[in-house]
Amino acid sequence: MPKVVRFHETGGADVLKVEDLPLIEPGEGEVRLKVEAIGLNRAEVMFRRGQYLQNPELPSRLGYEAAGIIDAVGPGIGAIQIGGRVSTIPSFSMGKYGVYGESVIVPDSAVARYPDNLSAIEGAAIWMQYLTTFGALIEFGQLKKDDSVLITAASSSVGLAAIQITKAAGASAIATTRGADKKQFLLDAGADHVIVTDKEDLAESVIAITSGKGANIIFDPVAGPLLEKLADAAASGAIIFEYGALSPAPTIFPLFSTLAKGLTVRGYTLFEIVRDPEKLARGKKYVYDGLQSGALKPIIDRTFPLDAIAEAHQYMESNQQKGKIVVTV
Amino acid sequence: MPKVVRFHETGGADVLKVEDLPLIEPGEGEVRLKVEAIGLNRAEVMFRRGQYLQNPELPSRLGYEAAGIIDAVGPGIGAIQIGGRVSTIPSFSMGKYGVYGESVIVPDSAVARYPDNLSAIEGAAIWMQYLTTFGALIEFGQLKKDDSVLITAASSSVGLAAIQITKAAGASAIATTRGADKKQFLLDAGADHVIVTDKEDLAESVIAITSGKGANIIFDPVAGPLLEKLADAAASGAIIFEYGALSPAPTIFPLFSTLAKGLTVRGYTLFEIVRDPEKLARGKKYVYDGLQSGALKPIIDRTFPLDAIAEAHQYMESNQQKGKIVVTV
Repeated sequence: MPKVVRFHETGGADVLKVEDLPLIEPGEGEVRLKVEAIGLNRAEVMFRRGQYLQNPELPSRLGYEAAGIIDAVGPGIGAIQIGGRVSTIPSFSMGKYGVYGESVIVPDSAVARYPDNLSAIEGAAIWMQYLTTFGALIEFGQLKKDDSVLITAASSSVGLAAIQITKAAGASAIATTRGADKKQFLLDAGADHVIVTDKEDLAESVIAITSGKGANIIFDPVAGPLLEKLADAAASGAIIFEYGALSPAPTIFPLFSTLAKGLTVRGYTLFEIVRDPEKLARGKKYVYDGLQSGALKPIIDRTFPLDAIAEAHQYMESNQQKGKIVVTV
Repeated sequence: MPKVVRFHETGGADVLKVEDLPLIEPGEGEVRLKVEAIGLNRAEVMFRRGQYLQNPELPSRLGYEAAGIIDAVGPGIGAIQIGGRVSTIPSFSMGKYGVYGESVIVPDSAVARYPDNLSAIEGAAIWMQYLTTFGALIEFGQLKKDDSVLITAASSSVGLAAIQITKAAGASAIATTRGADKKQFLLDAGADHVIVTDKEDLAESVIAITSGKGANIIFDPVAGPLLEKLADAAASGAIIFEYGALSPAPTIFPLFSTLAKGLTVRGYTLFEIVRDPEKLARGKKYVYDGLQSGALKPIIDRTFPLDAIAEAHQYMESNQQKGKIVVTV
């Protein structure tokens, strides 16, 4: 029986249990994946805690991103080949289709080939980070080469993807990190400027870096009190994408800055892309082309075995990582 | 010597003083207006209180909207004729060029003809309300006939302008008012639905009116705790324009609603339109055409004489008005 990760109560990382569950057959519109690698995301930590956009039905599976080989397809599925090397696009309910496991079922629309030059570990580290960033910066933000993009929590997989996509467009990437220990890593990852927020004032630094103009596009998963500082760092007419809720504190809307500067604050998730066939098609092409050309390249922090899934979640919550955490199966 | 309104300290309406000041000659790029009517705006109340986007230099003039006759032009001004019947577009510092007075100086770029079918009282009641609304609903909101527009503080001059512009586009106007006493007035003014927020739940009502969809465009000058209710009333992908700060309470950003629905919250003022020559040209044409066709028609609540300017401000702050308050000169 394949191992599958589930949790029977919400809470800390130790609620995650590796269980032996019967092999399931894919139903209509579904395919089964023999999993090789699983990419971890903040969304799963939030879901496990009961703090995500959807609440789990217990016991619940979890997980959005896996790379593997298709080993069974449901009735009526033509285009997808058994034996195909694919990874999953987070476009499903992770309670229903969670991919933390050795053998998992997902909707057929959620699997996509990834370039042959990528390992399975890298294949599990592409769609969430690059499609999330593509949607905000390219699709909605219409990133141009004269733009200055402020990227908070830049050492996360999505933050690093944002640096790569910003640089691929020829624009300027301003990354933030709390501690000085990640500064050189972020410069090596392509950031034009790194602001160490424990030591430097975020808004003052951005204003100085941009010669007084401020950042045109801000890409932030933190929210909370940080939003007011981001508004101070914003250029006139800027757009601030909020794509997460890492701060537990209430988010104050910086009303006077937004009025004075004509700022847009945009709540945004990947689902706006993956649930729209045209946007998804543009996103997949953008990401695939970028991976093939080498403009986009997943940065893997470290891997854990499946049995150490709780430890892997604890590591993510420790905020030490620089890039993607992947579980190998 | 012409009478001019100034204040020597910020505060309540009684700080406004009607003073006799020497007649001034217009400088380069300026014209002088013999004022016939002055349109009152919330912006002036906020400015008088020291709560506006700009702080006054005391003693300070105030006022954005006047209609009158040009009786002098500065050096090098060709296109503007002495004797022309114009009104002022709020595109200047009201501390420097405030139009509360019998004779005032404004930048030449800030005067515009208004249709002959309008009185001077109506002419003083067009640019602020219609250009503000044009910018949000038409220029940025790209209002379409299938849209449902939620208009808060709908009995204000800008709120009524928003009802007219929404209806002119063939879209649905949902107006809110605190008390039931203004409900029939708002229906008569063209609102398709009126929500009396003292008696009805705003979000539930909007959801019911829109058959579960929510409002696509929300146009709100209140902010504060109301923003969370507006997010609950918003459709997926909606845009919420915040164009004022009437609430004294902090504005909480409704992070989870904005993430779940992909909402945009946009700080917006008229200045984004009037300081951009192309947008201003489009806006002036839109407003002029609408006024000429009758699709747009200023609604005047009541008039006051110039000597009663403090009383006129008190009346505005009482929130009793239904439409524009105008001072006749």
